[in-house]
Amino acid sequence: MIPEKEGLKPGLSRSRPRSEGKAAHPLATELTRRLGSRKVLSSLSERRNYRYDAIQFGVTPVCVVLPETTADVVLVMQAARRAGVPVVGRGAASGLSGGAAPMQEAVVVSFTRMTALAVFPERREALAQPGVITLKVSEAARPYGLIYPPDPASFRTSTIGGNLGENAGGPLCFKYGVTGDYVRGLEVVDADGEVHVLGRDAYDLPGLLIGSEGTLGLITAATLRLTPPPRHTRTLLANFAEVGACAEAVSAAIAAGAVPSKLEFMDRACVGAVEDYLGLGLPRAAEAVLLVDTDGDDLDTVQEELALVEAACQAAGGEVRRAATDSESAALWQARRSVSPALGRIRPQRMNEDIVVPRSVLPEVVRRIRALGDESGFHLVQFGHIGDGNLHPNILFDPRRESMEAVHDLAHRIALVAIQHGGVLSGEHGIGTMKRDFMRDAVDPVTLDVLRDVKRALDPAGALNPGKVLPDPERADAGEAANAHS
Amino acid sequence: MIPEKEGLKPGLSRSRPRSEGKAAHPLATELTRRLGSRKVLSSLSERRNYRYDAIQFGVTPVCVVLPETTADVVLVMQAARRAGVPVVGRGAASGLSGGAAPMQEAVVVSFTRMTALAVFPERREALAQPGVITLKVSEAARPYGLIYPPDPASFRTSTIGGNLGENAGGPLCFKYGVTGDYVRGLEVVDADGEVHVLGRDAYDLPGLLIGSEGTLGLITAATLRLTPPPRHTRTLLANFAEVGACAEAVSAAIAAGAVPSKLEFMDRACVGAVEDYLGLGLPRAAEAVLLVDTDGDDLDTVQEELALVEAACQAAGGEVRRAATDSESAALWQARRSVSPALGRIRPQRMNEDIVVPRSVLPEVVRRIRALGDESGFHLVQFGHIGDGNLHPNILFDPRRESMEAVHDLAHRIALVAIQHGGVLSGEHGIGTMKRDFMRDAVDPVTLDVLRDVKRALDPAGALNPGKVLPDPERADAGEAANAHS
Repeated sequence: MIPEKEGLKPGLSRSRPRSEGKAAHPLATELTRRLGSRKVLSSLSERRNYRYDAIQFGVTPVCVVLPETTADVVLVMQAARRAGVPVVGRGAASGLSGGAAPMQEAVVVSFTRMTALAVFPERREALAQPGVITLKVSEAARPYGLIYPPDPASFRTSTIGGNLGENAGGPLCFKYGVTGDYVRGLEVVDADGEVHVLGRDAYDLPGLLIGSEGTLGLITAATLRLTPPPRHTRTLLANFAEVGACAEAVSAAIAAGAVPSKLEFMDRACVGAVEDYLGLGLPRAAEAVLLVDTDGDDLDTVQEELALVEAACQAAGGEVRRAATDSESAALWQARRSVSPALGRIRPQRMNEDIVVPRSVLPEVVRRIRALGDESGFHLVQFGHIGDGNLHPNILFDPRRESMEAVHDLAHRIALVAIQHGGVLSGEHGIGTMKRDFMRDAVDPVTLDVLRDVKRALDPAGALNPGKVLPDPERADAGEAANAHS
Repeated sequence: MIPEKEGLKPGLSRSRPRSEGKAAHPLATELTRRLGSRKVLSSLSERRNYRYDAIQFGVTPVCVVLPETTADVVLVMQAARRAGVPVVGRGAASGLSGGAAPMQEAVVVSFTRMTALAVFPERREALAQPGVITLKVSEAARPYGLIYPPDPASFRTSTIGGNLGENAGGPLCFKYGVTGDYVRGLEVVDADGEVHVLGRDAYDLPGLLIGSEGTLGLITAATLRLTPPPRHTRTLLANFAEVGACAEAVSAAIAAGAVPSKLEFMDRACVGAVEDYLGLGLPRAAEAVLLVDTDGDDLDTVQEELALVEAACQAAGGEVRRAATDSESAALWQARRSVSPALGRIRPQRMNEDIVVPRSVLPEVVRRIRALGDESGFHLVQFGHIGDGNLHPNILFDPRRESMEAVHDLAHRIALVAIQHGGVLSGEHGIGTMKRDFMRDAVDPVTLDVLRDVKRALDPAGALNPGKVLPDPERADAGEAANAHS
C-alpha cells in the first residue's frame, strides 16, 4: 500500500483545498440524490483514497462515482458539466504516470463496477466494460483456445479501461503489439455526455482516445480482438557483468533473426530488490539480467530462436541459464512482475520513466542513465522491455528526506538522454503528470499546438482530466480556447 | 485505362469549370516560378489526367505539383493557403473510393517522385517517402529476411502514401493487420504548411491521419514496421454451388480453429470475368469460389489448418482443390489480383463497395446483395476478404447508357444491408466520395459532429481534400467553422 501523504508535487496541497472541507460539494449532493448513495462516495475518508494512483498524489475529489452503466456515466458527465467541475476517469489506479490522479478538484469516475465481459469465439472478439481486470479477458477466452495478448506487469489488478487510457504495453508487446492494436471499436461518452459507438474506419477516433488518459472522453465499452496462444514457449535467463553488454546481446540476437516474444532487462539494483523481496535465486552479482521467452507453434523454430539468443548472449560475455521446466519459467517471470512491489520496499516513492530509444543506442543510453543515477546520489534502478528499446529508469526516493525538485531534475535529465538519442518519452505508461512537462522537449511547439487543437475540439471546456498529457500553455487557457477559431 | 469522360457525378462538371480555361491560374504561375516548371504541370492536357482516380471523376485541378522534398510540399501548402485554393494529395490513384479525385478546383500534389526508401534491418523498420510503390518495401526488405505485410490488390502500382491515406488492407490483413498496424511514425505537413514528426505516443495523431485521405494533413514520410515472412504457405481453392454455403464454410473453418492468412471469395460473375480475361482454368460453373492460404513457420501446423479449411468446405458441399506447387498457387492468386482489370472489360465504370459485416451474417448478407443485384438489372459482382467479413459488391455500369442515380440508389441499398446487419461501410478502401453520403446512415449525427470538430481542429479552412470522408453538413459550413467555439 502507498502511504497517505501530501505535498509531493511542488505547489499542490500546500493550503487545504476546498474539497477537504466537511460540507458536501453541491455536485456531490446532486449526484447522490440522482444516482443513490450506493453509487456515490462523498465522505472525506472515502474520497481521500481516490487522490492518487500508483505513483502520483493529487487533489481530493469532490466526490467519487461508481457507475454501473453507461447511462450513469452520461448522467455524471452532464451534471459535472453544468456544475463546471472536471471529470477524471479511473480504473484500478495501478498506472505509473499519474494518469488517474485528479490534479484539481474533480469528480472521479471509478469504473470498478462496470465489469461485464462477453467472449464471442466465432468472431475472436471480447466485449468488455472498462472495469474488467485485464487478466480476466484471457481467462474467459482461454476455454475457446484464445487469449488477449497485452500483458502489463499489473495485469492481475489493472483494468481494461485503464489499459486503454494509457495504451498499456507489457513484455509480450514486443512481438504482439500494445493495447490499442487489439481494439476493434469503442463506446465512448464525450465531454457533453453524448454516447458514441466508434469503429476504426473514417477518422480513427478510437485510436485517438486510446492513450489519451481520459482527456478526450470516457471509454464505457471496448470490443477487443482475441488470438490463439502460441503452442510452445521457452525461457532463458542471461546475466552480464556490464549493462551495455546486455543491450548489445539483445541487438545482436534480433539482428540474427530471433523474434523473442518477451525480452526483459533488469539491472543489478533491480535484481537485488526482487531477491530481497522474493528470494528466487536470481544472480545478485550480475550488473544486468536478461529474461527471454521465445514462442510459436513450431517447437523447432522456438528452440532455434532461443539458441540464437543464447549464442548472442554468450558472444557478449553473458552467462546463460535455460529454464528446464514450465514452473522454473513461471518463477523467472514472477520475478519480473514483482519489480514494482519490490522497489516499493526500498523507498516509499518512485519516479518511474518509460522512455523508448532505438535499439542501436541502447548500450550508450543505459550507461549514460546509470552514470546520471550514480552522480545524483539517488537510488536509481533500470529495467524494461529492452526488445523494443522501452526502458524504465526508476528514481526511488523518500519525500520526507529528499527534494522533489532534485528528483524532478534527474528525471528530466534522463528524459533528455532519451530525446538526444532519438527516443520518445512514453512507451506504455502514458504521459500523465509525470512526463507532461518533458513534452516540451519531445514535441516541437507547432505540433503541441496541433495536439491542443485536437484536445479543444473534443473537450472545449477542458473538463476532462485536466493537467494530463499536454503541458500547460500560458495560464489564460480557457479564454484562448473560447477564441481559438473566431 | 479509364476513358476520359465527364459528368459522372450528378451536379458536377455540368458547366465548364474555371480551371478548364486556357489561362494559367495565378497559383499555377506562382508555383511554376518558385518550384520550376519541371515540378509543376500546368497545361490543360496534363492537368486533365489528374481529375480522377481508379473509380471517380472529379474536377480538373488548377495545376499539379510533383514535389521532390518535404520542403516542396511545405511551399505548395503555404502558397495554396494564401491563394485560398484547396490541396489534394495523390499517390498512384489506384484507390477505389475516390479519395484522390479533386472534387473542386484544387492543387493536386502528386507524390510519385518522392520515392526514397531505406531499410533498417536491426530495427526491423523501413523509412519510406509517400511515392514508394507498396511492393518495393517488401522487395527492399526481403534480402534481410523481412517483409512488409499489407498487400492491397494493387500493390504493384499503389503507393505507401495512398495506402496510408486510405488505411489500405489486402488479403493478408485478415491475419496480419492493415496498413495502420505497421506504422511507427509519420512526417506530416499540416494545413498551415508546418512540418510535424509524429510518434504514436501521447495523442495518436498518426492514427488519426492514417485513413483520413489527406483531409487532415499530407504525409511526407512514414516509418514502417517490418516482420519476418512465414516459412511455409499452402493454398487451396474450393467451389460451391451457392454463395451462402461458401460463407458458411468460412465461418465453420474459423470456428474450428483455422487462422488462414488469406481467405478470398469470388462469386460466379467475378470468376467469369477473370476467366474471360486470363483463362486460368477457374471453375466457371461455380456460384462461389473460395481461395485460401494458410501460413506459418511449422509445416505441420500449416497443413493441419489447411485440412481444417478443406473439411469445412466439404461439409458445406464445396469441391476442394489443393495447389500442388508454388506456381499453381501463384496462378490462383494472380486470378484474385486480376479482378479489378477483368471487371473493367465488362463495363467502363464501376461502383465498388467495401462493406464489412460480422462473419455470422455473411451468408444472409451475400444472398441479400445478390438478390438486390438481380432485381436491379445491373451487372453486379461480389468478391472480397471473406475471412474478416470484408465484401466488395461491385456495380458495373456504362455511364452513357445507365443512370448514375440508379447506380447510386443500388449502392445505397447495398450499404443499408451492411448497416442493418451490424456492419460498417469501409473495410480497406476508405470512405472517399463513394461512401461519403452513406456515412449519415452509418454514423449518428452527434458522432459526425465530433468528427467534424476534429477536422476543423486540424484544417479550419477546409482546404485539405474538400468533399471527402465526411458528408456535407448544411451549406453554411465555413461560417459555422468560424463560429464553432466562440
